[in-house]
Amino acid sequence: MTFIVNFVYTNNQTEMIMKKSIFNSYGALALILISIELFSCPYCNLEFYKEIKGFRQNTLIGQELLASITNQFSAGVQNYNQNLWSSVVQVPPAGEQTKAPQSTDKREFIEIINRDNSLSIPPTSYVPQNTPPTKKVTIELSQGETYLGNGVIFKGFTTNGTVPGPTIIVDEGDIVEFTVVNKGTIPHGASIHAAYTQTSKYLGKIEAGATKTMVFKVTQPGVYMYHCAPGGHAIPMHIIFGQYGMMVVKPKKQYKLEQLLHKAPDVEIYLTQHEIYASGEDAINSRPIYTMFNGKVFRYVEEPIKAKPGDYVRIYFLNAGPNLLSTFHIVGILWDYVYWQGNPDVIMPGGQTVTAGPADTWVIEFRMPPDEGAYTMLTHAVGSADRGAIGLIVCDDSAKTPLTVLSDGPKYTEAEFNDIKSKATRIVAPFEPGSPDVDVPVIYGPDTKEVLIRIIGNSFSPKVVQVATGTKVTWVNEDVFSYMEGEFGGIHNVVSYEGGPQAFSSNLLAHTEKFTQEFTEEGEYKYMCTPHPYMKGVLKVSDLGGGYSSAGTSMIGLGFLSAILFLVLLMLVVMVFDRRKKS
Amino acid sequence: MTFIVNFVYTNNQTEMIMKKSIFNSYGALALILISIELFSCPYCNLEFYKEIKGFRQNTLIGQELLASITNQFSAGVQNYNQNLWSSVVQVPPAGEQTKAPQSTDKREFIEIINRDNSLSIPPTSYVPQNTPPTKKVTIELSQGETYLGNGVIFKGFTTNGTVPGPTIIVDEGDIVEFTVVNKGTIPHGASIHAAYTQTSKYLGKIEAGATKTMVFKVTQPGVYMYHCAPGGHAIPMHIIFGQYGMMVVKPKKQYKLEQLLHKAPDVEIYLTQHEIYASGEDAINSRPIYTMFNGKVFRYVEEPIKAKPGDYVRIYFLNAGPNLLSTFHIVGILWDYVYWQGNPDVIMPGGQTVTAGPADTWVIEFRMPPDEGAYTMLTHAVGSADRGAIGLIVCDDSAKTPLTVLSDGPKYTEAEFNDIKSKATRIVAPFEPGSPDVDVPVIYGPDTKEVLIRIIGNSFSPKVVQVATGTKVTWVNEDVFSYMEGEFGGIHNVVSYEGGPQAFSSNLLAHTEKFTQEFTEEGEYKYMCTPHPYMKGVLKVSDLGGGYSSAGTSMIGLGFLSAILFLVLLMLVVMVFDRRKKS
Amino acid sequence: MTFIVNFVYTNNQTEMIMKKSIFNSYGALALILISIELFSCPYCNLEFYKEIKGFRQNTLIGQELLASITNQFSAGVQNYNQNLWSSVVQVPPAGEQTKAPQSTDKREFIEIINRDNSLSIPPTSYVPQNTPPTKKVTIELSQGETYLGNGVIFKGFTTNGTVPGPTIIVDEGDIVEFTVVNKGTIPHGASIHAAYTQTSKYLGKIEAGATKTMVFKVTQPGVYMYHCAPGGHAIPMHIIFGQYGMMVVKPKKQYKLEQLLHKAPDVEIYLTQHEIYASGEDAINSRPIYTMFNGKVFRYVEEPIKAKPGDYVRIYFLNAGPNLLSTFHIVGILWDYVYWQGNPDVIMPGGQTVTAGPADTWVIEFRMPPDEGAYTMLTHAVGSADRGAIGLIVCDDSAKTPLTVLSDGPKYTEAEFNDIKSKATRIVAPFEPGSPDVDVPVIYGPDTKEVLIRIIGNSFSPKVVQVATGTKVTWVNEDVFSYMEGEFGGIHNVVSYEGGPQAFSSNLLAHTEKFTQEFTEEGEYKYMCTPHPYMKGVLKVSDLGGGYSSAGTSMIGLGFLSAILFLVLLMLVVMVFDRRKKS
Repeated sequence: MTFIVNFVYTNNQTEMIMKKSIFNSYGALALILISIELFSCPYCNLEFYKEIKGFRQNTLIGQELLASITNQFSAGVQNYNQNLWSSVVQVPPAGEQTKAPQSTDKREFIEIINRDNSLSIPPTSYVPQNTPPTKKVTIELSQGETYLGNGVIFKGFTTNGTVPGPTIIVDEGDIVEFTVVNKGTIPHGASIHAAYTQTSKYLGKIEAGATKTMVFKVTQPGVYMYHCAPGGHAIPMHIIFGQYGMMVVKPKKQYKLEQLLHKAPDVEIYLTQHEIYASGEDAINSRPIYTMFNGKVFRYVEEPIKAKPGDYVRIYFLNAGPNLLSTFHIVGILWDYVYWQGNPDVIMPGGQTVTAGPADTWVIEFRMPPDEGAYTMLTHAVGSADRGAIGLIVCDDSAKTPLTVLSDGPKYTEAEFNDIKSKATRIVAPFEPGSPDVDVPVIYGPDTKEVLIRIIGNSFSPKVVQVATGTKVTWVNEDVFSYMEGEFGGIHNVVSYEGGPQAFSSNLLAHTEKFTQEFTEEGEYKYMCTPHPYMKGVLKVSDLGGGYSSAGTSMIGLGFLSAILFLVLLMLVVMVFDRRKKS
Repeated sequence: MTFIVNFVYTNNQTEMIMKKSIFNSYGALALILISIELFSCPYCNLEFYKEIKGFRQNTLIGQELLASITNQFSAGVQNYNQNLWSSVVQVPPAGEQTKAPQSTDKREFIEIINRDNSLSIPPTSYVPQNTPPTKKVTIELSQGETYLGNGVIFKGFTTNGTVPGPTIIVDEGDIVEFTVVNKGTIPHGASIHAAYTQTSKYLGKIEAGATKTMVFKVTQPGVYMYHCAPGGHAIPMHIIFGQYGMMVVKPKKQYKLEQLLHKAPDVEIYLTQHEIYASGEDAINSRPIYTMFNGKVFRYVEEPIKAKPGDYVRIYFLNAGPNLLSTFHIVGILWDYVYWQGNPDVIMPGGQTVTAGPADTWVIEFRMPPDEGAYTMLTHAVGSADRGAIGLIVCDDSAKTPLTVLSDGPKYTEAEFNDIKSKATRIVAPFEPGSPDVDVPVIYGPDTKEVLIRIIGNSFSPKVVQVATGTKVTWVNEDVFSYMEGEFGGIHNVVSYEGGPQAFSSNLLAHTEKFTQEFTEEGEYKYMCTPHPYMKGVLKVSDLGGGYSSAGTSMIGLGFLSAILFLVLLMLVVMVFDRRKKS
Repeated sequence: MTFIVNFVYTNNQTEMIMKKSIFNSYGALALILISIELFSCPYCNLEFYKEIKGFRQNTLIGQELLASITNQFSAGVQNYNQNLWSSVVQVPPAGEQTKAPQSTDKREFIEIINRDNSLSIPPTSYVPQNTPPTKKVTIELSQGETYLGNGVIFKGFTTNGTVPGPTIIVDEGDIVEFTVVNKGTIPHGASIHAAYTQTSKYLGKIEAGATKTMVFKVTQPGVYMYHCAPGGHAIPMHIIFGQYGMMVVKPKKQYKLEQLLHKAPDVEIYLTQHEIYASGEDAINSRPIYTMFNGKVFRYVEEPIKAKPGDYVRIYFLNAGPNLLSTFHIVGILWDYVYWQGNPDVIMPGGQTVTAGPADTWVIEFRMPPDEGAYTMLTHAVGSADRGAIGLIVCDDSAKTPLTVLSDGPKYTEAEFNDIKSKATRIVAPFEPGSPDVDVPVIYGPDTKEVLIRIIGNSFSPKVVQVATGTKVTWVNEDVFSYMEGEFGGIHNVVSYEGGPQAFSSNLLAHTEKFTQEFTEEGEYKYMCTPHPYMKGVLKVSDLGGGYSSAGTSMIGLGFLSAILFLVLLMLVVMVFDRRKKS
């Protein structure tokens, strides 16, 4: 079950080539060296599909995965990459799948559209794909880095280079042409909550380097989330890694306070609350390392939003999550009106908070009181607020209004960002090793014979491990995946790509499946998951000789959750070392 | 403080007999061998009550527990098992307690009923118990196993053999006779959220093997939770262990979209979101191992729900919890109308989510857009969604509607379930040891002299422990219980029932109380908590001789939270072993 | 980087004097002995400000902190302690800051007031500060202890000596003079959610021993939270530590059920759900040790609230949090009406739950059904409910109504409380060491050379640590603070104040900054954070000689999260001891 592979691996932003081993599914080694563009390893999809039809065909998980695939195909789901899959997949009655999506000649479609137009409620967002748009929107999705404040760099996924992505503002009734450009090296996609129509088959999976577009009509005013959605397991993952933003459909009808005050808002704030995770595992378990408004901890404490006494303020509020509840509150303010999900027809007067789970939205309206001073805004779930989701609206007679504050994450020029990076004191990267005080190296002494590394939330846990020669390391997949395409499911493998001398490569692992490898030679191995090539871990194999104690010293600086553990391990290592000296 | 007991213990589904030691409360040993049916150990209730009046009478907790008992008795609470308690409890003014519950001759009752019938709001659900019903409902409660998908068996509590239990659908105005059959070996009960009247005294505690019934009128339409409720601490526990379901009271009034479309829904989906825990401790601390819709992870990814373009879809949504917030969303859908708690009079138009804490409900209505394809439904709290609460509604012209999807957990024939069990790869059991990769054995080396096991959420933590001879083991009760009857409170003890040679048995332990036992002889002990006889743990006492290392090897396969710890322990064991070899 | 300081430290409730070392920011030792009243160490503010302008001026965090300060000053924020700051801070255009807050002569103010009075919605709460009040409210803030039930003492912060503080009830339209008395030794303050006007500059920071007052008009009826709010990072902290309560503004308009029943409620219950944390870290991470209604676990199980059949019950419900979601439910009750945030104009009929995040409120109205018996109230997030947030309303024909239940925490005479304390079995203190079974001593053996202690949520983690001589201990600040005044930000230091022989004192630490000290002499050190002088830790330095094993024995009794770890450590210590004996 151990596969010895030789490979060359090059990783840069635009290209990822490797000679890799595709091993067959029955335990025998099939060393096939192929050069492929490793964009989320589509060959892993193939390989895993073969395994499902092969050695997994009698397992429970194999049967369930096959049911998923078959039922989705037969239902006319069109977002499978048929070019790739058609060689191995029997696609049942494929009639619907070849239809041009822009066709409107279906009798049923016309009936439905006619019916919906005759109702007293807004129609769905469906329009023929060749309808000329009234607004065009383009977003670019990629991996990338942003600055979170307090000296901390976030290495995750971005939209137009920021977290959150750009604030998209359109008007009720607009025909929107929404274009998604994948500037990254893995599949991305888009879910647009403002669209009341099929989006998955148009934008649900966009290959690296590709661009896709869909056209829809925004028929319901409100505040909406949009986010990356490559399909299945990858939808939560890409949200967790930072790809989301706010889209506002401005209503034709005036919000009530606008009617009463006979003017537009003096201050409009598009405010996204969101949280950042140091690892996929932390994200699955809802343990954020930072919370914030609009991309930076305490952003509006450093740069308070300023309004004049008596100003009419409207906040478009989105809790992007991905996990926490927010009860948004401003010290010294009671709402005049709040509008559930930004719908001007769902009005609640008064109140001290709006309660928003992930993806919940509100429009909030109030007047600045006559009295000047600072009004603190925060989520009143104060444990998490203390991780950064606090800001200020300063009531100041000299404020320059009207003012609009967008929810885009902070933008920097390349020079500015390079300067920030040179001064940064911490890197948080959920899917690969970040700073050692976040992703603490876990060190096992030479007497440890077996070590386990969990795979969860598209991250290895722990991400950095040191073992002695002779140690058996087991990886177990704890992701509870589903076999939907996109940036694949929660299927993982473990493939070394740099360092040596002993390479290793696992099968693809389904939920609870394991891979074990014994390490007999010293070296430092970098390894990855080929279906999710951004997932990386480091395994150091070392006999912990004389040079060890200084290495131990340099490892000080510990992350939140692993700190105590690390110390225990450090102590153990020292004990071992100490004993060795004595014996 | 150490009690040596001899006993015989037999455990099967219908009978649990043991000769056990009842020890008195003052430290001296009183070995009383009695044969009892160990249904949640009612004798433990007696024993603990004696302790409260005895050595705990001057403790704070003793005084508070006594106050609880006295105040509840004197208030006319009738759900105490008086046959059992009357021998030891002084029941204050007992006048009300002998009243037949079906009596309606109370002047006040008639006045209240007349008043309520004259109001413009629905009356309460109270009807005399001898009122002839218009609907009869029967549910059966028991311990049991279900299949969660992905190869995972859940061993918990069930309703009619499934988790969630059956979908109960009645009409506004129905007189419901609700029968609860306890097919288990411990007390169960029922809380029916649709009933606006006293239920606890009728269904709040039902002894093993017993059946109880109550009659009530459903006066408020909506979507409701029902769940097991044996009283006090056991209410949370039995929910956590899986006993809940959805009950819908269909309104006389049409929901608004039905009025607009002039037809009944084409697709009705009764959808319960819920989560599963690997231990009581995880449940108390809100750390689920799986989340799902209707009883199985990714159930509707494997078997998508199919609707036709333009279909009118209504979802009856319940977040059963027991802990997490859900923001339910469907990719590509905006609601036409949602109805808070399913009440047709609390309407909100539009919106991308409904926000539901545990026990919150909604009716959600929308139209399938003309465009075919897959619409993904999920909780937008995406960290937890990724543990399984994702499904598909596939819009497909060939779908067969009208269609009804119930929220009952999957059902299997006995043969089917046996086949599943034979192929299962993991068992999750919150209150007893499950698979070793979930409930990882924690191994302490021979130099460890003292070990602690916590009791929390009706589970031992860790559930499986290995120590060397000479180790003192301390159990501490961290459950914050209250002295209400039912399946008793969070009072626990530790009683060995199998294995040996050294038996052990603790006092009943209140919050923060401890029991310590030194283990001087090798052996494997299975132990339990007699007030909650399903709570089980394993303690292995072993000198870790030459056979050890293979045992160590077989233990690989680690659970979510304990994995790292296990490795530390494993390393320590190996170190000890290594040192022994050297010395 | 190591500073040797000599000091004398006396700590009591009213006075805290120390000779302390102020060290400069560049690593050289500046031993300045000054006697100061150590009220949240205002000199630390000075010192840190100098550091920001000094060695931090080119760091990212330094630049951001400076931006915060500058922008807040220039915006006319007046709640800085100018007496203290003026000596070192250049305050930009200070025009507005000297204005008497009671002035109403600003043209704009008058225009705004006139406009607001002409609208059809309530005006803001602003009134000139010299307006004669119709109601006067005084609360006293302090550190203090309360009794949580089950033998557990909470050492935190209190309002009028209790947690929650007093229930404040006023009428819509009242002019309220709100006085806050700081009876403690650190700054406190107040945020009053019922006030729709600037409060921070009046009550946002009140020095120890000082009293401040503001006048405002309550214009929006409802149920509100009030809480301590000394500014910035301290707002979450003081809420976490217990300083909050309920304020109700009774509406002029009748609630709907009162209209229908033509009478006032028979039973009015002011009910605050809240949770208690064993450490600041647990609070930041939302891991409570207890949950409760009105200050005591299972308070209304011990003393059930009693109502008569048919009684009209109104609950004023506040979820004070600070972190958890509540879905409040009563077994056997459906609401007749609930009012969002207590606003009589936002009515929802029916329903089984109200969903409340932290700071969310509801008014809930229902009728007791005719049938007598116990109705259990709880949060249906049942994992957390099981930690104490369960109570009873007993329907009993002999109940004495009308009845009012306030949300004040339990009150005791001094004698009563002393008696409770003498019998208490556990102390929970989030910011200093509590009982050893909560704040488990963490012991490192002599081979451990480096130990790390985290600072998070204004607490040290772990709080009690033992190391061998020669160990280097590193403290790292993980609080994500912002430089707002009040009881300062999340800036911390580490200063020993008792024990010896080797004193130590760190710089002030910003987020992720570290302080390392090697300990070369045996001794037991108590240390604190001078900006937050209640934050305390214990460091024991010991060679673990012959006396050790008994010490090990006495340490048994383990807390929730650290239990397993402690055992590992204990084992290690024993191993070390064992090896020493052998060698």
